[in-house]
Order: sequence, then C-alpha cells, then structure tokens
Amino acid sequence: MWMSDLAAASGLPVATVKFYLREGLLPPGEATGATRARYDDGHVRRLRLVRALTEVAGLRLDAVRAVLAAVDDDSRTFHEAMGSVHHRLTAEGAEPSAASIAQVDALVERRGWQLYDPNPHRMALARALDALAGLDHAASEDLLDDYADAAEAVARRDVASVGREDRVAGAEAAVVGTLLLEPVLLLLRRMAQEDASARMGDRGVSSAPTSRRRG
Amino acid sequence: MWMSDLAAASGLPVATVKFYLREGLLPPGEATGATRARYDDGHVRRLRLVRALTEVAGLRLDAVRAVLAAVDDDSRTFHEAMGSVHHRLTAEGAEPSAASIAQVDALVERRGWQLYDPNPHRMALARALDALAGLDHAASEDLLDDYADAAEAVARRDVASVGREDRVAGAEAAVVGTLLLEPVLLLLRRMAQEDASARMGDRGVSSAPTSRRRG
Repeated sequence: MWMSDLAAASGLPVATVKFYLREGLLPPGEATGATRARYDDGHVRRLRLVRALTEVAGLRLDAVRAVLAAVDDDSRTFHEAMGSVHHRLTAEGAEPSAASIAQVDALVERRGWQLYDPNPHRMALARALDALAGLDHAASEDLLDDYADAAEAVARRDVASVGREDRVAGAEAAVVGTLLLEPVLLLLRRMAQEDASARMGDRGVSSAPTSRRRG
Repeated sequence: MWMSDLAAASGLPVATVKFYLREGLLPPGEATGATRARYDDGHVRRLRLVRALTEVAGLRLDAVRAVLAAVDDDSRTFHEAMGSVHHRLTAEGAEPSAASIAQVDALVERRGWQLYDPNPHRMALARALDALAGLDHAASEDLLDDYADAAEAVARRDVASVGREDRVAGAEAAVVGTLLLEPVLLLLRRMAQEDASARMGDRGVSSAPTSRRRG
C-alpha cells in the first residue's frame, strides 16, 4: 500500500506517519522510486502500536522507542522482554529512604516474589512510599498487602494470557497485554472510586448540580 | 522560614522553588522587604505535593496546576473534589467505537457503578479497548471483570481511608490517597508480573530460542 493508505489504515495523519518514519519508530517501506515506497500490514500494525503507546499509555517518544527496541529484539524470552520493557519504563530518581526500601523488601519477602536484581521497581516503589509519608499518608503494611493482592490477581491473569503465545508475538504481547492494560486498570479504579465515594453518602450535599446516572 | 530553608525542607533546589512560585504552583510568601519573604509549613507541604505529583505520579505542570485548583477549591465535597481531579486528568481524545462504548457500558451495568455523567473515564476506557482490539488483543468481558474486581477492591479501601477526613483535608487526601497510589498499584503489578512470569519457567533460557516450558 502507499503512504496515504497506510495513514488511513492506522488512523493517523500522513504528516505524523512521515514524522515517525524520520524518527525511526517505523521501518522504511520498500522503495519503488525516488520518492515513493510501498508499505505492508506490518507497518500498519507498528503504527497502531506506536499510536496506542502514545495516546493510550501516554508514553513520550523516547519511551516508545525503548519499548519498540525491546519488542524487536527477538533473542529475548517473553520473560526477558517483559522485564526489559518494564525496566526501561521505570524512571530512575533520587535515592529513597532506607525505611521505605526496607518496607518494600519486607513486602517482597512476604509475597515471596521472585524479582530481577537490581530492580528499578523496588526503588521507584520506595520513592513513592517516601512521597506518601512526606504528605502524612504513609502507606501501611496492610494497605500494601491489599494493593499487592489486587496486583497479583491481575498479573497472574496477564502473564497466563500472553505467555502462551510464541516468542516474537510474545515480546509484542508483553507490551500490549501488560502496558496497554495499565490505563485500563487505572481507569477502572477511578470509576470504582467514584462509585464507592458516591455510596459513602456525601453526594449531592453541595450546591453544585450534578446529574448522575446509574450504570 | 526563608527560601533556602523552604528548599531544604522540600528537597528541591532553590531554582525549582522559585520556578514554581513564578508559575503560581506555590503561593507567595509573606514579604519582609523588597526581595525577601518568609514561608511556612503550608509552603513546605505544598511543595512536597507538587514534587510528588511531578516525580511520583509523573504529571506535567499543566496537570499539576489543575489538580491544585481542585485541592484549593474548598467549596467542594470530597466526592466532588475527587471527581473533579479525576476528570481533569483523564485526557480527551478521538471518539471511540460504538462497540467499545457498549462494552464499557455493559461493564458499568454489570458492576452497578454509579458514575458521573458525562464521564470521561467511560470514553477513555473505550479508547483503550479500541487500541487493544486494533492490536489483536481485544479485552474480553471476563478480563474486564477480573480487572474491575481488583479495581473495586482497592477503590473501596481508598475511599474508606480518605473519606473519613474533613472536607478540606479531604480534597488533598483525595489527591494524595488516590492519585499517588496509582504508581504504587502499577509498580506492584509490574513486580507481580515479573514474579508470575518467572514462575512460568522461561527465565534464563534465552540462548535456546525454541525452549519454553508450558504452563
């Protein structure tokens, strides 16, 4: 297909597709002349992935590039591809407090989780706990266990779903089936919070008119 | 306290604190001369919140500004403050497919969730489902129910924790206790995925491209 068909199939403007080509997020098409090239279904799929990573998962282009590098490295096992994607996306930052690191390590110990070492999630989680504690919302052991219960429930399902697929699909599946479900989980939590908050009984007690419907 | 003390107490460089002052993310101190001002514990707390929203929750400055506006509007109930924060943070985008909207509505109906209407989460979730379907990972009803189970479990806990507090603390608590726990939930899911993936048995077999144990 030509550039215009590719753009239409991916739902993106031609200018955006050309930008992704220049940025190396999309491999070049098969040249058919000085200024024309043909593209195939692989290009459509890659564009959909780039679009989903930017628009749905909210990643910046440098993060998208890192994710695609992990997807394209087919020497990796599914487990390694997923670890690579996760670790590339977990930002580094200041050294967290020893107390928060200890709290994370105790949680990992309680859960019996087998994790890569060194593990950027461990440090990022400790930094998040520091931030909560600094705002008088220190996360209790009990809260972390409840959150970990929920996280484990969805993670088991995620890995069982995508791990069955073959290796190359597996790397992309690790991205699609884990990363793109992150906003799904957060949106569902926000919806469930709205519902839980409405049920607490403080709805409608201010002057602001709000119409609300039942599911 | 002076600017230098404020910076030290918040863990931010003086230049960053001055930037936040210019951007209106931090209210001015009490002027004590042409170039000096005094700050108090409220400023320290606000800076910690801004820092957590940018560094932990990963928000851009315009999103931080929107969150602070909701926090500072003490005419709202807790429920409304939380709704306002959530709705400001859920990006608008292209119109999702009718099929995905119907899938979200069916889920909300099954859960019996009471939601604000119109609801940006509903559309954002439908867009995420479109993206997954476009990458051959259509989310099944079963997957959404499992995710909603996990989301409800943490949401009930979140709202029970922060809803007990008074109104003004409630607005900030809605931000801290819900928004700053989003990265905690995602990090725990990534850790749990690493563990689940490791248990599937394909770690460390990358040199043997065809070996992967089942189940």
